[in-house]
Parts: sequence; C-alpha cells; structure tokens
Amino acid sequence: MAEEAKKLAACAAVDNHVQNNQVVGVGSGSTIVYAVDRLAERVRQEKLNIVCVPTSFQARQLILQHGLTLSDLDRHPELDVAIDGADEVDVDLTLIKGGGGCLTQEKIVAGCAKHFVVIADFRKDSKALGQQWKKGVPIEVIPMAYLPVSRTIARRFGGEANLRMAVSKAGPVVTDNSNFILDWKFEHAQNWKEVNTAIKMIPGVVETGLFVGMAERAYFGMEDGSVQVRDPPVI
Amino acid sequence: MAEEAKKLAACAAVDNHVQNNQVVGVGSGSTIVYAVDRLAERVRQEKLNIVCVPTSFQARQLILQHGLTLSDLDRHPELDVAIDGADEVDVDLTLIKGGGGCLTQEKIVAGCAKHFVVIADFRKDSKALGQQWKKGVPIEVIPMAYLPVSRTIARRFGGEANLRMAVSKAGPVVTDNSNFILDWKFEHAQNWKEVNTAIKMIPGVVETGLFVGMAERAYFGMEDGSVQVRDPPVI
Repeated sequence: MAEEAKKLAACAAVDNHVQNNQVVGVGSGSTIVYAVDRLAERVRQEKLNIVCVPTSFQARQLILQHGLTLSDLDRHPELDVAIDGADEVDVDLTLIKGGGGCLTQEKIVAGCAKHFVVIADFRKDSKALGQQWKKGVPIEVIPMAYLPVSRTIARRFGGEANLRMAVSKAGPVVTDNSNFILDWKFEHAQNWKEVNTAIKMIPGVVETGLFVGMAERAYFGMEDGSVQVRDPPVI
Repeated sequence: MAEEAKKLAACAAVDNHVQNNQVVGVGSGSTIVYAVDRLAERVRQEKLNIVCVPTSFQARQLILQHGLTLSDLDRHPELDVAIDGADEVDVDLTLIKGGGGCLTQEKIVAGCAKHFVVIADFRKDSKALGQQWKKGVPIEVIPMAYLPVSRTIARRFGGEANLRMAVSKAGPVVTDNSNFILDWKFEHAQNWKEVNTAIKMIPGVVETGLFVGMAERAYFGMEDGSVQVRDPPVI
C-alpha cells in the first residue's frame, strides 16, 4: 500500500516537473527509487537529454544503474529541479529529512535547485511535525562535538538529542561526509524557522534535517490510489 | 619583534586566566606555541592539575610534547577557559580566524568554554576587519558544495570566495575534518553578526571564521614590550 503510494507520488512529480534539457537533483531514500525508475523510463521513451546530480552514494548508484547521465555541483552548480523524499511534511511544507542520514547533501542539492519538489506516501503527511515521524530531527555534527552539541540542544530547546548508532557496524552511524548524526526528540512544537537557525549556529553543527521554506510543492501518494498536491501557504 | 609580542600576550593570558584544577582549551597557530610553553612551565613549577582540550592536530601534538594532560569534549564537554590566537581582532572583539584552517574546531572549543580569551601580537589589532588580515574570511565547506557556496557568497555579499589551495600537495587544502576552505575576500565592512549567520545558513557551509560575540578579552603584545588588554564594548 505504502509502496504503491510512493510510486504514484514519484511518477506525478517526475511527469510534472522534468522537461527535456534539464539538470535534475536526485534525492535519497526509498521513494526516490520510484522517481529514478520513472525518470529513466521517460528518458528512454522520449529521448530526453537529462543530467542528474545525486544527493548521496545511494542516489549516485541509482543514477548509474539506470544508465542516466551523472554530474555534480562542480559541473552543474545550478539545477532546474530537485526531487526528494521526506520523513514528515507539515501543512506549511516544512520538512523533517535525514532518516537516511543524507540530510546535508540533500539540503545542498535542494538549495542549488530553482524548484524543489517533495514526494511522499500518505504516512508522511502531518498537521504538525512530530505527529508522524517519531524519531526526531536528524542533525549532522562534527564527531568531536557530538556531546556538547547534544547537551546544548537539550538545554536550550528541550527533549533529548541522541547519537544515532549503527546497526551493521559497532558504534555510531558515520555519514557520507564522515560526520555523526544526533536525533533530536523534541517535546513540543517550535518555531521551526527560528529553531533551525539556532541549531545550525551551534558550533559543530554541520546541518539540520529541518527544511524550512525550501519545498515549493509536495506530492502525496494516497491509499485510494490518488495523488494529493500541496503548495506552501501564501503569506 | 612579532615573536616577542606573541610571547608577551600568551604569558599574560595564561597567567591571568588559568588556575589550578581547570580544563583549558588550547587553540591553534603560532601564538599558541608560547601559551603552551608557559602553561607547561606553570604546571611544572606550581604543580597545577590542568586538563587540556585541543582545537587541532597541531594543538594535540603541542599538548603531548609538553607532557600536559590531554582530554577531549567527550570527557570534558565544558571548559573553564579557552585560549586561542586570531588573524585579526577589531574594536568590538569580533575576530577573523582560520588562517591555519582549524576554525571549526576552534569555534567548537571556544563555544564550550566559560571564558574565551584571545592572544595576538600588535599586527592583528584592527579598527575594522579587513585592514590587517588581507586574506579574507575563511569558510569551511563540504567539498561537494564548494562551487555553489562560493557563487552564493559572491552574489549575496560581494567580493569573491576562492578555494584555498594546498602548498605541499596537489589540489585544495583539506581540513582536519576532511572539508575544504573558501577564503572570502569581502569588499566592504558588513554587519558581521548578520553576515556570519547568513553565511553559516547556506547549505554546505560547516563553519565561518567570523567569531562574533565570543571573545571576552584580548591580549595584544605590543612593539614596546607592553601588553594591551581589550574587553568588548558594553552594550
């Protein structure tokens, strides 16, 4: 059910936002697999000229496995569109990302794109952050700073920020950038724009998994086989 | 002349700010060498119980070479005092740091200290940032993002931000955190607090070499053999 919903959202985004001769940012995670499938299908059928910039090792492998054209931000510092998943999407299109540990590259690539589009299944849709994704906000940190950063976040913003531990190796998860990840379980709603800035400003924080004011459209695949579109509120 | 001035500043700071049973952050650079010399002398002579937290590989080596007690932020996430040099110090005690490429660890350690004290020779003293240190503001970046970050900084804040190239290896300088450094040559004075926040918020920026509102005292070794003390202005 969720897999079918991911596929619906992915196809809608690729069909509506990718055109010939574009540079496309490719996100990470399980929903992106369907987007790259659809992108490769369109490139083949419509003979599109598309260049892909990955947000992770996983995205890079997907691009190569599908025979798509791989590039990077050195060659293409400006992207036409970036498509990525999210762990949770609220009514303002504020996102929690980084369950897959690739939040920093994902935010870099999204920040380089003229348009940033989110794809997700219905379970990621949320009235307020924290209702769906219970694992907290991922925060990438310089390894030497994980403990003082964790203490600073708990003291200033409440909750607790715990070092993410690896499953297939001893010790902590190490990101593609050789850093650690704290998962901040917040206790109550926050002004996400302010708290995102405040956390990133803590020395030792590389990036937060809060994406505020970045997404310009979200596609949700629904249980009934439909696709719901959400744009950010007009302010 | 400058070497003698560095030594004067370093000794004054160590003598005035380090007491028995303290955890001391040890900065990086050429001035810090004199501070560690003096710290080791005092520990020996006064039989002080001091624990040192380094801000770089260089600082770690200095601590070990002097037989001082080495620790880290896991064991000591809160420091009593951090002592570090600077490339330039203005009248507000806003600093440019990172000529030695260790700005991120230096800011992490300074941020964990109850008191952060700067030591410098007279050449680092400046009415306004950019008058003394002509190499720009160092900015540590995730390697994949160096080009879009450089373009964003130039577009939004003027000047240019160039990748720092290595001298003893081919290609760019790689920091102790495996990142790259941009040196941003700004064209005119800025609101340093605002620009520091704005630059750090760019995805891909790990840390900036602007230290705003962090130093609580600066010691300048002067050409005439005296030491000048500067505290931040009372607001």
